[in-house]
Order: sequence, then structure tokens, then C-alpha cells
Amino acid sequence: MSRTQDTHRALELTDLLCRHPSVSAEGRDLDETAALVEELMANAGFTTQRLAVDGGAPAVYGEQLGEDAYTLLLYNHYDVQPVDPLELWDSPPFEPVLRQGRLYARGTADNKGEIAVRLAAIEAVRNERGSLPFTVRWIIEGEEEIGSPSFAAIARDHATLLHANACFWEGSVGSGDGRPVVTLGYKGLLAVRLAIRLLDSDAHSGLAAVLPSAAWKLTDALTHIRSPETGEVRIPGFYDTIRAPTSREQAVVAAQGNGIVEALRAAYAPARFVDGLDGAALRERVSFAPTCNIAGLQTGYTGPGMKTVLPRDAAAQIDFRLVRDQDPDEVFEALRAHLEAGGYGDIELTKLTSAEPVATDLDDRLVARVTRIAEKAYGAAAKILPSSPATQPVLAALRRSVGVTGLAAPDNPPHQGSAIHAPNEHIRLEELGRSVAFFRQVLTELHREMRRE
Amino acid sequence: MSRTQDTHRALELTDLLCRHPSVSAEGRDLDETAALVEELMANAGFTTQRLAVDGGAPAVYGEQLGEDAYTLLLYNHYDVQPVDPLELWDSPPFEPVLRQGRLYARGTADNKGEIAVRLAAIEAVRNERGSLPFTVRWIIEGEEEIGSPSFAAIARDHATLLHANACFWEGSVGSGDGRPVVTLGYKGLLAVRLAIRLLDSDAHSGLAAVLPSAAWKLTDALTHIRSPETGEVRIPGFYDTIRAPTSREQAVVAAQGNGIVEALRAAYAPARFVDGLDGAALRERVSFAPTCNIAGLQTGYTGPGMKTVLPRDAAAQIDFRLVRDQDPDEVFEALRAHLEAGGYGDIELTKLTSAEPVATDLDDRLVARVTRIAEKAYGAAAKILPSSPATQPVLAALRRSVGVTGLAAPDNPPHQGSAIHAPNEHIRLEELGRSVAFFRQVLTELHREMRRE
Repeated sequence: MSRTQDTHRALELTDLLCRHPSVSAEGRDLDETAALVEELMANAGFTTQRLAVDGGAPAVYGEQLGEDAYTLLLYNHYDVQPVDPLELWDSPPFEPVLRQGRLYARGTADNKGEIAVRLAAIEAVRNERGSLPFTVRWIIEGEEEIGSPSFAAIARDHATLLHANACFWEGSVGSGDGRPVVTLGYKGLLAVRLAIRLLDSDAHSGLAAVLPSAAWKLTDALTHIRSPETGEVRIPGFYDTIRAPTSREQAVVAAQGNGIVEALRAAYAPARFVDGLDGAALRERVSFAPTCNIAGLQTGYTGPGMKTVLPRDAAAQIDFRLVRDQDPDEVFEALRAHLEAGGYGDIELTKLTSAEPVATDLDDRLVARVTRIAEKAYGAAAKILPSSPATQPVLAALRRSVGVTGLAAPDNPPHQGSAIHAPNEHIRLEELGRSVAFFRQVLTELHREMRRE
Repeated sequence: MSRTQDTHRALELTDLLCRHPSVSAEGRDLDETAALVEELMANAGFTTQRLAVDGGAPAVYGEQLGEDAYTLLLYNHYDVQPVDPLELWDSPPFEPVLRQGRLYARGTADNKGEIAVRLAAIEAVRNERGSLPFTVRWIIEGEEEIGSPSFAAIARDHATLLHANACFWEGSVGSGDGRPVVTLGYKGLLAVRLAIRLLDSDAHSGLAAVLPSAAWKLTDALTHIRSPETGEVRIPGFYDTIRAPTSREQAVVAAQGNGIVEALRAAYAPARFVDGLDGAALRERVSFAPTCNIAGLQTGYTGPGMKTVLPRDAAAQIDFRLVRDQDPDEVFEALRAHLEAGGYGDIELTKLTSAEPVATDLDDRLVARVTRIAEKAYGAAAKILPSSPATQPVLAALRRSVGVTGLAAPDNPPHQGSAIHAPNEHIRLEELGRSVAFFRQVLTELHREMRRE
């Protein structure tokens, strides 16, 4: 098939997948989407089965034996983020629409587009050769956007199905400048809900002179967690285990070019970046800096006009991105102790999700191998990202149960600015085609490269 | 007329007024209720007219010349709060019903019952004497529950109609222990919306390593406004003009008894009051402490489950209750300068409303006069509240245009627990009768007291 045909097929499959509103946070349409995924995998030559734990959305698993026993494991997810605020979408989020060379819909970039790319490449190689050169195993889960609550149990219970020589995760987000991106890992994540109620009911705001304020208590607790002056996390020990980047890691960050920063500038238009940084110093933060983020905070009256109310309760959701050698369980316990020590023990803490940081070492042979294939397919020097700023809880589970770490290869059409997790999420058609081309080369050359070594 | 007859007449008038669903927030039945009020005032001997500004509900004004030129101005409002949640009412809110010595309906306590009390007392004195001993002017507006948007203009345009030697506001809410409450004023109010947007769209929370956070910026700004450690407002000059309570003021607060605190404890069940205070020290805060309250704060995702998002924007509504000699306009400008100086100049400030604090000085002769009448009518020591914790924007408007301050006298039948602004609002008949008795004495004795001085 030609590259145009490959692009068309990937587009068709993306469109098909994105018509399903598989919002895991809302439990919407998950079985139906899993059924579609299973059907598409079976059509592409996989023997499929569903792997699930009680009450969880099913993961779809497929295996396709190749000419060689060398085995590549693929990971994706068919679920998507919620769509709110819906009013900021220019077209309905589950009715994919092409505008100016982009396909708009929730899930196009994260990551139904990549499922489509991999399917299109596998179909193309099978059409050309009759079979795959090596064995491909593929697991596509339905709970990634809610922290993959079932995946650790699935990986533990079905570890033998998931063993592999190499592993490609959900794809690397490209920088849009024609250079392929290879991502070696993900940060850890600890998401926590903080909730406090100090009164039996909302009160007239004049009573703030004498009644305690849940809103202030929560705001003050957030300040106790993170310094307004320095932006540093104040939890004792938070930074103690962190290792500085090695000189090789600094070198690959320096070689990335500033595209990732320029893409962020174009997509989000910040007046300035964190700490006023730019260039390599800022990019080192992307891979090596932990974060403490407020994902949501709600208290009192936030409608039109005004209401002079003293709210009875307040709640926030915060998330920490953790870097290598930080442990989310230890951070959670340190957070609890820190809040108690600061007089915030009446704030109820709920651990929403956690995952260890996991990355393949820059010196691993797989890194050099995939980088070579990507540079050949793209005709450009690869960018190596020692760690994504995002998290893959499943990666930690797989390292524990299966022993693979893996990486994210440049077979993913979106780049920075695809509005992932945001309104008007989209992919660009020109990158869809290149992604299929890269993955076709992986399916033939990864195996040959392996044998030469 | 006997006290029983007085109670009956006040009950009849309350019932009549409360059958009108004059919900100003919904623009319901306002002209019809104004017509009824005007008719009732005319029947009680007033020469009436309507005062209105374009588009606003009319205020009803009446004047009744007395034997002496001494003039008392009365203020009330005929509008009421919305009734939702309707399902929590035990009987229809606009069909007054007597149950166990209480009349239930929206507006009984706030404040149609007081209109009825004043009418009944005026009718009784006129029946007894043929005319009133001194002149009474009365303004009853229809927009109090929506912030009195027309009142300042009405007071400015018709200042000569409103001049008076003394002024009684909407009545003081009694404490239910048989002691009359005299309230000398209200706090000022400055309500401000803070809004900030730092990104063109929401981002993946992993990008918090490099992208600025509107949520943190707002939280940090709130901390810049008010110290988490001390709870003090950090705006330079905020406390500079505040005078500590005088020893006389401290004495009247000490003499209040702790009923107001116990009522708050019963209603809201706080684990502790502000700063762990109780008793007179806490009650001093009710009258003399300014506040800085978060009425609402919203950013990011606050729905069920979780979403790891870096919100593009954040907004809060805060309100300051201001005490004597604090000026809301000055506080607003100082807030703006303080935020700019702290690096928070990118937060957009909107003044939602403001009103100056207004109170009659404890040493004003009117206070002693009304207190003496109240103690005689009730047969119990009065409680003097130097300032309500709430705000009356109309009071500030009247002081500006007319020059009166006035006070809230105990001619109002409700007490704490009358479910003002809530379902099952009611008044107690035993207090209706006592309120009419008190106001009858005001109508005859206020004048005599005045002449003796």
C-alpha cells in the first residue's frame, strides 16, 4: 500500500474509534469500545481475548505469532479524558471532523490515533508479506485516564502473556519539526484529594468574624504544601532521593533543540515559563523536575453575580509528578505527616492514584536500536526525551510483574499542541502518514537489527 | 386596644402581606405588593407616594405629621428571598399557616412581620389619641434582597423626604431569651472577584514542570492577602484606621450574655470558633473585627473521579466586612496595589459591591433613649450590639444623602432560629405582641424622652 493509502486507512480507523465516547471517568461506552477494538485487532490477524478484573473496564489483549520468536509488546488505551468544558469545543467531541488538515475529536491524539497507526501498519505489512517478521503482543486497556486501577492486577495475573524482548508504550508526542522523538520513560504520579468541612451548613459571610473557614483552611494547607515564594514543595524529604541528570542525559537534552518549548509557547501562550527559564535549562525540568499541581479546587459560590457566603466545606485535587527514586507511597505518608504537623490534620486526605516513575536507562541497547530506525525513517536526528512529563502507571506495574520497561517510539501522529486532555483535541494528517511509515519499518527492521547484534 | 387585640391585628397584617410572593430576585408580584403596602399605610394615616428609578421595583414612601416636629424615619422592605428548596417547606411558603404558636410563611420574619408590627402600633396609637405625638416618615423598598440597587439614587433624589431626628432600621433579631436587642449599626462590605488566566487552554498536569499555574497563582495571591499563620489581612494600612472598642463598648459586649455564641454553636456546630475564642472576646469579634472571607473559589476539574489537568484559569470571590473608619474604596485600591507589589498584577480584580460601615455611636443620646424604652417594655436588661456582623448598603446611602445613622430597635418579632432566608421561615406570636407593645411605647415615649433632654 502507498503512504497515501496508509494515511487514509489510519484516518478511517481513528475516525471509527473516536466516534465512541469512551470516557472512563464517567464509565461511558467502555464495553462497546472494547468490542470494536477487539474486532479491529482480530481483523489485523491477532488472536484476542479480554482481560479484566471485577468491575473494571476490560483490557483487550491480542497475540500474533511472527516468523521469529523475538517479541514486541505494545501498549495502548481505548479510553479518553472527559470533554468538559464542552462549550469550548468548536465541534462535538465525539463527532470527528476534518478541518484544515486536522482531525478533531476527543481521543484523536490521546491515543486512538496511535491505535489506528499501529493497526494500519500491521495490516500493511501483512498485506505485503502475508505475516509479521516477529511476534507482536498487544494490550489495549480501558482505564488509563483514571489511573489504570485494574492494570496492575491484570499484569500480575497474566504476566506470561505479556513477556517480551522489547516494549513500546503509548507513543511519544512528536515535536512537529520532522525530528523523531524517543521517550525513555515517565514520571511517577501521586494524586490526592483534600477535603474539609468545618460547619454543618453554609453561613452568612459576616459570620466569618467568628466561624472557621474551610476555604481558608484549605488554601492555607496548600500554601503549607508548596511555598508561594520559591514554588518548592515543603514536604520534608521530598527532594532528598532525587539524583541530578548525568552528563550524557544533559547532552541529549541539549541536543533536543528548543522545539518542545516553542510548541508549548505556541499551544498555551504563557507570558513566561516556570521560574522564567527557557532552552535546555527549562527542558531539563520536563524530564527531571518533580511537580506539585492543583488540578481542581472548589468551594462556595462560583456562579454568576455574587453571594456573600461562608462555605461550610472546600475540596481540592492535587497531583505530584515524581522523578526517579521518588516513591509515591512515601510522599503520601510524608504529606499526611506534614499536614498534621502544620495543624491541618482535620483535612481529609484520599489517595486518588499513585504510580512509580519508570524509565529505560539511556544506555540500554534498545534505545540506540529504535533511535537508528527512527532516524532512518525520518531522515533526521532523533530527539531523546529521558522522561516524559506525564505518567504511565501501567509501566510501573509491568516492570514489577513482567520485567520490561520499554520506551515510547515515534509512531504517534500528535505533536505538542494537539490539545491533549483539552477542548479541540486533534491530530494532523501529515503526521498520521509518517507515523504509519515509521511503524512499518519497526515491524520489519527491529527484528533484523536485533539479529545483527 | 388590648395587647391581645394588638397581636391579632399584627398577625392579620402579617398574614395579608405574606400572601404576596414578592420575590425580588424573580421580579414576582412587586407592583401588587407595593400597592398593598401603600394602601395599608394610607389606612394608617400616611400620605403616600411611590419613589422609583427606571426599571427598579418602587419604594413606597409615607409621611404622617405628628403633634411635634420631632421626626422618626422608619425603613423596611416588602420584598422577600426566593423560596427554594421548595420541597423542604412543610406548608406552601405563600400560604401563611399557624402551627404551635408560630406563623409560617416566607417573609414573616424578614421582614413583613415588622411592617405589620409598626402598622398595628401606629393604628393603635391613632385610635387611642387621634393622631401621632410626633412625625413619622416611612420608606419601604422592594429590592433589599437583591442588594437595593435603586436605593442610593432614591435617597439622593428624595433626601428632603427622608430627613429625620432619629431613624429605625429593619428590626433587630431578638435572642429569644426575653431580653430586647438594640443593634447600632452594620459592617461595611467590599466584595471582589479575582480572576486569572495564564494559558490559552487547560494543559496536561505533567506540564506543570514548565507551564505556569493559574490555580497556584491565585492560591498564592490569597495567601499574600491573608496570612495563613496569623489569619491577619496583609494589605498595608488595612488595620491602620481601626479604633479598638472603648471600655464602654467592651462593657456592653460583656453584658450581652453568650446567647449569640450558643446560637451559632447550635446552628453551625463548629469544632472551634475563630482563634479558639469564646464568650465576650469572641463577641467582640462579631461587632469589631473586620473579615476577609473566601465566598467562592473555582479552578480546574472538580467533578467525580479525577482529572490530572493544569487549569488555564482560576477565579475566586472574596469579601471583606469592614468596621468603622475603614473605607471600602480605599481597601480596594490598597488591595490592588498590594497584589501588584507582590507580583500578582496579572490577576484581574472586579469590585462586585461595596458599602461603608455605618453605626450610631454608643454615646449617642438615641441609644440610651431607645434602650430605656425597650427595657421598660420587656422588663429585662437590653442587649446592645454595637454592630451587626452583616451589612446594610442602604444605611450607607442614607448617611451620605440624608445624614442619619439610626439603629435597629427590638420591634421585630423574629429571633435567632426563625429560619430567615431558609425553608419554614416563621414568627412566634408571643413575640409579635411584645413587639407591638414596644413600638407603641416608642411612638409615645421617644418624643417625651426627647423633650426632657
